[in-house]
Amino acid sequence: MARVFNFSAGPSMLPEDVLKTAAAEMLDYQGTGTSVMEMSHRSNAFIKIAADAEAGLRELMEIPESYKVLFLQGGASTQFAMVPLNIIGRCEGKKAEYVNTGMWSKKAISEAKKFGSVKVVATSEDKNFNYIPELKKEMFDPAASYAHITPNNTIFGTRFRDLPDTGDVPLVADMSSCILSEKYDVKKFGIIYAGAQKNVGPAGVTIVIIREDLLGKELDITPTMLSYKIHAENESMYNTPPCYPLYMAKLVFDWLKAKGGVAAMQKINEDKAAMLYDFLDSSKLFKGTVETKYRSLMNIPFVTGSEELDKAFDKQATAAGLINLKGHRSVGGMRASMYNAMPVDGVKALVAFMKEFESKNS
Amino acid sequence: MARVFNFSAGPSMLPEDVLKTAAAEMLDYQGTGTSVMEMSHRSNAFIKIAADAEAGLRELMEIPESYKVLFLQGGASTQFAMVPLNIIGRCEGKKAEYVNTGMWSKKAISEAKKFGSVKVVATSEDKNFNYIPELKKEMFDPAASYAHITPNNTIFGTRFRDLPDTGDVPLVADMSSCILSEKYDVKKFGIIYAGAQKNVGPAGVTIVIIREDLLGKELDITPTMLSYKIHAENESMYNTPPCYPLYMAKLVFDWLKAKGGVAAMQKINEDKAAMLYDFLDSSKLFKGTVETKYRSLMNIPFVTGSEELDKAFDKQATAAGLINLKGHRSVGGMRASMYNAMPVDGVKALVAFMKEFESKNS
Repeated sequence: MARVFNFSAGPSMLPEDVLKTAAAEMLDYQGTGTSVMEMSHRSNAFIKIAADAEAGLRELMEIPESYKVLFLQGGASTQFAMVPLNIIGRCEGKKAEYVNTGMWSKKAISEAKKFGSVKVVATSEDKNFNYIPELKKEMFDPAASYAHITPNNTIFGTRFRDLPDTGDVPLVADMSSCILSEKYDVKKFGIIYAGAQKNVGPAGVTIVIIREDLLGKELDITPTMLSYKIHAENESMYNTPPCYPLYMAKLVFDWLKAKGGVAAMQKINEDKAAMLYDFLDSSKLFKGTVETKYRSLMNIPFVTGSEELDKAFDKQATAAGLINLKGHRSVGGMRASMYNAMPVDGVKALVAFMKEFESKNS
Repeated sequence: MARVFNFSAGPSMLPEDVLKTAAAEMLDYQGTGTSVMEMSHRSNAFIKIAADAEAGLRELMEIPESYKVLFLQGGASTQFAMVPLNIIGRCEGKKAEYVNTGMWSKKAISEAKKFGSVKVVATSEDKNFNYIPELKKEMFDPAASYAHITPNNTIFGTRFRDLPDTGDVPLVADMSSCILSEKYDVKKFGIIYAGAQKNVGPAGVTIVIIREDLLGKELDITPTMLSYKIHAENESMYNTPPCYPLYMAKLVFDWLKAKGGVAAMQKINEDKAAMLYDFLDSSKLFKGTVETKYRSLMNIPFVTGSEELDKAFDKQATAAGLINLKGHRSVGGMRASMYNAMPVDGVKALVAFMKEFESKNS
């Protein structure tokens, strides 16, 4: 079969050139006589891959030297526990503040409650998370150990346009579905974390970017493997890292640099999203589900209003090589996830297909 | 460069046929139009890969239905915490018993101490771990929550020939460097765990085989992602699993079944090991470091007695396409790790090289 346009929320499309490089290097990485999968993580060849991955990410995100970059395992779900285990104890009272903007925020909140005192400073649950609540500085307690947000919400398709001002309280962000998709000023965050399987690489590697002064505040009950400090001290090689997913991430970083970096990619992402939103706004059949000003660049849910038509759409789209458009059950309808690796042609094909579907069904 | 024989302790060699399949399927897995890395973990194609991986492992190890098979992240080092977090609380007093047979046992012990009361029932540290201590049933406390062993010790090259009789106390084993290399009776264990990067696949996936009655005894402080019960209830898909390493493991299981399964592989491993041990026993230059009856089938350390010669050996072997033979610093000299994917020809080439080296240097 020909390659399809894959609108999956994650794992999701990877750049075709990256996959071609991986296939070509599978049995013999650059004259080593071994696959990257077979290399000792202590070998010079692999240490260079890991160092290049870190350097690539640092360059792409302009990460200051005062931040550590970690490549871990366990996905964002493990970070939901690691964040409180590592920093909820930095201030007396073990207080943490969360903004609840969807299912992943809720999971992060419920996990943090195991380890301290959690306050939800704002939520958009009243409207099924179709907007981002307004956040003012005075809503945040200056005595909290950290404040947590989810800048892009994969399921509900919402996006923070502005970061909250939390004063001196470190801002922690789950960027799983928006890292590298638009420019963020790393200096405004205490911790950024992200599962790789959307904008970075295959599932199995998790990025953590942490300001150094936040290291070393773990609760006593923190497992060694959940300590940021341990991983920082060992340059993410306290134990065997997920070598192959990390190598793939390195290839994706190279690809992104060749594309012009994050600013160039953000422009492309804005154009791709605009193409679909413009059509949604003009359509008589399809409707976006999110308040206009909070619309995500990455995940775009839409509905026809008819379950039957939604089903038909998904089925016919799949047959046309536009796959994984079925919406999440919490929203229904469809969802197009359009991460960095989704070509403009994929979005064009989707919009063309939607137009055709609309004309046939109205 | 031609493919080399890679004696790395892990990550380590993978079967060449498996790598060829992975390369061929990289851009289009069986007509799906996507790479396995790009598939939603909820897609039918990936769910089948995961189910096939589990079925393959169950068949190979004859895992009874009363055991759950989990594919997790974080390596054996994460298991060092997960085991006590999940089962040290099953009996009053939170007692666990460990046999200390090397660096990995020690790490497991030190981690368990965070969560309960740990007793080291026996240790071989007095002779730099070059043997397995004798274990008698009366050494184990029937009131302990579990007893932990490391059946094969990667660094020191020792192997349990017999399992200890721990009565009703569940036996927990770190099989990272011996899983699938020889037959084990799963029914004798409460929990078996193993990082993949030696006998299973690439780094990034961790196997846990757990008797069902041991589920659901977590301490309150257990992070959700470290709960066996959560992963068991969600068939290892509570969050996005490490999809590609799991796919590779599935391919390795297929390869192993085609080779005749674990019994056939054990015979090959015994032959490979005998080839090297026989040479070591007859050599005037090289000496094995382990007491004969506890010699590992997987990891074979040996020394010349001269640091200078050891260095020369490693350098010349590398030039001859026999790589990663440098020994671990705790033992010195050399170490040949010969997991399932190391072909017989690799061991023949090593022994031939050692003979030549010996004749040139004595």
